[in-house]
Amino acid sequence: MLRLYDSPLSGNCYKIRLLLAQLGHQYERLELDLLAGETRTPAFLAKNPHGRLPLLELDSGVCIAESNAILYYLAQGTQYFPDDPVAAAQVLRWMFWEQNTLEPQLAGAISLVKFHGKTNRDEMVQERQERAEKALMLMEVHLSMWPYMVGDRYTIADICLYGYTHIAHQGELSLASYPAIQDWIERIAAQPGYRSMGAD
Amino acid sequence: MLRLYDSPLSGNCYKIRLLLAQLGHQYERLELDLLAGETRTPAFLAKNPHGRLPLLELDSGVCIAESNAILYYLAQGTQYFPDDPVAAAQVLRWMFWEQNTLEPQLAGAISLVKFHGKTNRDEMVQERQERAEKALMLMEVHLSMWPYMVGDRYTIADICLYGYTHIAHQGELSLASYPAIQDWIERIAAQPGYRSMGAD
Repeated sequence: MLRLYDSPLSGNCYKIRLLLAQLGHQYERLELDLLAGETRTPAFLAKNPHGRLPLLELDSGVCIAESNAILYYLAQGTQYFPDDPVAAAQVLRWMFWEQNTLEPQLAGAISLVKFHGKTNRDEMVQERQERAEKALMLMEVHLSMWPYMVGDRYTIADICLYGYTHIAHQGELSLASYPAIQDWIERIAAQPGYRSMGAD
Repeated sequence: MLRLYDSPLSGNCYKIRLLLAQLGHQYERLELDLLAGETRTPAFLAKNPHGRLPLLELDSGVCIAESNAILYYLAQGTQYFPDDPVAAAQVLRWMFWEQNTLEPQLAGAISLVKFHGKTNRDEMVQERQERAEKALMLMEVHLSMWPYMVGDRYTIADICLYGYTHIAHQGELSLASYPAIQDWIERIAAQPGYRSMGAD
């Protein structure tokens, strides 16, 4: 059975639980305590030298790190990843963009606010919020033209970007001025098999 | 014919030229002047709203952004991307890791040194160098066990990580304490069809 090393605090981990729920896969869920350093033990570092969650362990014992690589692995051959090579590249385009441009800012702001007691009066939070706003504006323009990130189809590009975008408020970022993103968030929550980030 | 919107200054652009050379593809190369704002014109933003290079334009007029998504698109069905689903996921694992963890630090340090006149006495440069060193150490450990990033085969994971790693010195980072990375850099430069970053 698939084994997911997981944390309820991480938007990157939630991406995987969401896709696994929509695929209807059974899996074993192992929660690690990020704040207590449980991803820094020798046992975990042997599985992922980067010491990060999520991590997917296959029946063979092989481990796959990086949330978006896990999404890619699980979505192959399913409706959540296109067969068409150009559409597939566009899905990955948004997933790389998320890891380079959106996630560092959103996850960074959330981490500072939730775990380090910072507020939006703090310069480090403001810097991340400003960069996140630029990235969100790019998504807003795109989603004002298209229902999903790649054409008219819900894919792992949507799951990937949804992971942190839908909890932007945890980083004291409001989505009030992003109506297309708000509509997209509602469309995702209405997908068959959807599970919320807080679901057990 | 494929059209590559390109810059000689960018390690992300070089990744694409390297793979295109190894695939033996003909393509049209359009150099944009990053420092003169040529990626911020309305004409270019219509092709890539993110205003970044590289950008690959297909015969159909469809544009693919994000260097690693372009690598993925071009490498499908070739020796540079594995058919095996687990190996494919591992290739993408390193490519997502590059965009999230390595590239922001290396490209950031290089940009500060080359284009903003900073040195390693500057705190912003030091911060990026320190984070880059942690990422490089992870690669070093991996490459002391394996000849390439994914098993015994040269793939787009190697091209992706090579893009900025081999020019780390431009960010005043030395690879002297990373012998496995140095050997890997030599193995890559010996690949059939290799072209250097500065090649015309």
